[in-house]
Amino acid sequence: MNLNARAAALCRTLAADAERLRIELHLQDCGAMVVDCGVKAVGGFDAGLLLARLCLADLATVELEPGGDGLGPIVQVHTDHPLLACMASQYAGWEVKGEKFFAMGSGPMRAAAAREPLFKDLKYRESASACVGVLESGKLPTDEVCRDVAAKCGIAPAELTLLVAPTRSIAGTLQVVARSVETALHKLHELKFDLHRVVSGWGSAPLPPPAKDDLAAIGRTNDAILYGGHAVLYVRGDDASLQEIGALTPSSASNDYGRPFAEIFAGYDHDFYKIDPHLFSPAVVTFVNIETGHSFRFGKFDRQVLAASFGIA
Amino acid sequence: MNLNARAAALCRTLAADAERLRIELHLQDCGAMVVDCGVKAVGGFDAGLLLARLCLADLATVELEPGGDGLGPIVQVHTDHPLLACMASQYAGWEVKGEKFFAMGSGPMRAAAAREPLFKDLKYRESASACVGVLESGKLPTDEVCRDVAAKCGIAPAELTLLVAPTRSIAGTLQVVARSVETALHKLHELKFDLHRVVSGWGSAPLPPPAKDDLAAIGRTNDAILYGGHAVLYVRGDDASLQEIGALTPSSASNDYGRPFAEIFAGYDHDFYKIDPHLFSPAVVTFVNIETGHSFRFGKFDRQVLAASFGIA
Amino acid sequence: MNLNARAAALCRTLAADAERLRIELHLQDCGAMVVDCGVKAVGGFDAGLLLARLCLADLATVELEPGGDGLGPIVQVHTDHPLLACMASQYAGWEVKGEKFFAMGSGPMRAAAAREPLFKDLKYRESASACVGVLESGKLPTDEVCRDVAAKCGIAPAELTLLVAPTRSIAGTLQVVARSVETALHKLHELKFDLHRVVSGWGSAPLPPPAKDDLAAIGRTNDAILYGGHAVLYVRGDDASLQEIGALTPSSASNDYGRPFAEIFAGYDHDFYKIDPHLFSPAVVTFVNIETGHSFRFGKFDRQVLAASFGIA
Repeated sequence: MNLNARAAALCRTLAADAERLRIELHLQDCGAMVVDCGVKAVGGFDAGLLLARLCLADLATVELEPGGDGLGPIVQVHTDHPLLACMASQYAGWEVKGEKFFAMGSGPMRAAAAREPLFKDLKYRESASACVGVLESGKLPTDEVCRDVAAKCGIAPAELTLLVAPTRSIAGTLQVVARSVETALHKLHELKFDLHRVVSGWGSAPLPPPAKDDLAAIGRTNDAILYGGHAVLYVRGDDASLQEIGALTPSSASNDYGRPFAEIFAGYDHDFYKIDPHLFSPAVVTFVNIETGHSFRFGKFDRQVLAASFGIA
Repeated sequence: MNLNARAAALCRTLAADAERLRIELHLQDCGAMVVDCGVKAVGGFDAGLLLARLCLADLATVELEPGGDGLGPIVQVHTDHPLLACMASQYAGWEVKGEKFFAMGSGPMRAAAAREPLFKDLKYRESASACVGVLESGKLPTDEVCRDVAAKCGIAPAELTLLVAPTRSIAGTLQVVARSVETALHKLHELKFDLHRVVSGWGSAPLPPPAKDDLAAIGRTNDAILYGGHAVLYVRGDDASLQEIGALTPSSASNDYGRPFAEIFAGYDHDFYKIDPHLFSPAVVTFVNIETGHSFRFGKFDRQVLAASFGIA
Repeated sequence: MNLNARAAALCRTLAADAERLRIELHLQDCGAMVVDCGVKAVGGFDAGLLLARLCLADLATVELEPGGDGLGPIVQVHTDHPLLACMASQYAGWEVKGEKFFAMGSGPMRAAAAREPLFKDLKYRESASACVGVLESGKLPTDEVCRDVAAKCGIAPAELTLLVAPTRSIAGTLQVVARSVETALHKLHELKFDLHRVVSGWGSAPLPPPAKDDLAAIGRTNDAILYGGHAVLYVRGDDASLQEIGALTPSSASNDYGRPFAEIFAGYDHDFYKIDPHLFSPAVVTFVNIETGHSFRFGKFDRQVLAASFGIA
């Protein structure tokens, strides 16, 4: 099972479906295909669902669902390949840089480059004949950036597809909040939990209104996970470690919990590295031990912070 | 992107899937294909989902979802082409008439005929080699009616597919309540709101029990939207106009709001034109301004009227 | 419409999709294909959704949905072929036995064997060139068992596909709680209700955490239906019979209602035949009479019993 091959197969219909998805395909000089899903292109819900699915190497199902209580839509995800789909692929762990260009990179291309220390823990990397990546950015990558990414993946630029959406776009907002399971896994990895114990995952988070700018959008999409996200992780192994680590897992285990993310961020002078890294986790994390039959639920939702963050009058 | 071509592509599998969908295909003398989805045929949930999808020119996703709180199913819709899918296609704006025949016509055939003044405002019409329409009617159209519709669409009758379901049938009930976004757009058009500001739409409405007759079914399906429907519209432009027009948008802005539709209708001696046209809108309409990042929510659900209307003992 | 042919068509992609589904295909000496979905194989959500779909002869839609109120996922099902999908196929009415082997058998193979008295009431049996069955069991069937099943279906063993999952596996748990509509129909059949009156069905039930062993899993999956399940049945005919039989239909009509199933079962010394057969039904059953327009809802959910049974700390 090759993550990039799975995503590349999905990309084959992008051109034929571009008008419906309101995306724009740009063939770079180097041969790389850059797909605008929300920079100048309008994009939308379906472009966002596609981005999420590609980020997850088509190893998860991502759906819009009713939020209940007369609220708007939520984003539901489930996967039987949580490590490959979420950690080896979806996690935005690649800082893609170029002259006047910066983006958080996610998607299966990360598994081909395998540049992050995380891949040693995952014991996974893959060689791919074609690679697919997703960039969270307000700009399209330059030819130089595409060449660099392709080189790091070990492929010719003509075999690279990069899809781009700003956080504040409809598609960008949606694909970020499809990360409820991934965020829980990443937090567990920070807590030194053995991720190979996680067998399957289900998650949900409310879809926030797109924000005025990317900074505000980072606030809202984080809040959707931190105060409205739920991850249910099916795991193996002992219960004691779940009770111990579990209590530290949800966002509420952090002292920074309780205010909209934008406020927390501003309080630290917009220095990302001053924020408690343990804040980044779903509001509620439920562990379902498929060996002992016991389940453990941690954390709490905070609808008030969500309402303040989403700003619905 | 041709609305009729999209719907016609979906129709190619109707014959092969007719038994599963419990629909019946009738080839008319003139060559038109009439598809019975609930007149004599039984139809069902899946025929209703198909009708809704065809009405929307396959430019929206329509799904049955759990209603929450232990209630029955609701119908969820989302689209990134609200004007084309909902206004140029789904809106039931064509009164299809013949000798002893009357039906409200919807679907992409409307965009080929483009007979309604609405199409001038939409600045849209299309020429099509094959057309698809949906008729809300308790009778199948005659050969004469099919010829007339085809002529108005500018096609040979053999290139016309008409799908038919009475309001009171399972499929007919479902396809009507898939109109939460469309109803909001139509109300906004009545209020002279520039529909081109609407970028994407999400909506939901409870699926009412099929009623005893079409008159009662018109009551219940209207109530599903008026008292249980929610539309979330992603829009561009200024906030002031949203606040001003928004307050007038939900059904509760009408003086007729508050009683089951059947009662209102009877109160006006079943004269449709005496009903306040501003009543026809979802219970709750939320505007999400993707330029300013502000959202505005208007209206309220009325579960009591719904319970009275749906008559669940 | 051949139930086995529909399921067999779905099985054609099993080998190609085995890695994603985490299932294992074993070709028996006799030529039968045994598909491990949770015995030694890991399986998962998607293997469970596939099992459910195969059980229902691909005549129903089965989906994971958000449970609302911040709970975990629920399983939603809807079908326009309730008798064929649920009774002639999904109901686990075939006790598949062999030397040191026992399993409850379901799926379309039952309609080919048509050994159960139920098929006389359904007035349905089919001859099939290939058969598909689902076994709820902690062991894979032996070659002898496969030959026996094939002989009873009237096919060569090489034309038989048997999918297997223990109740306690992720896939096994999911496919059992996809039986909300089926359980209601079975109860109605016990009450001598004419099932041919049922036109369509929708249902939901919470997905319980997989249990430590199969006995505990039988408890939880039953509780999911008995205390959390909802079936909405669209029926024809008179209202009086619905009111009369309806009151007897939900699980709460049984004196055994009110405690976790595992406790009830233990109270009868684990003798299945001592349990009131009328206990087996969804918590809530709603009848929607499509002829009279009247609906009748019976029963009640019991979240406390569910919480105790699912054991979420």
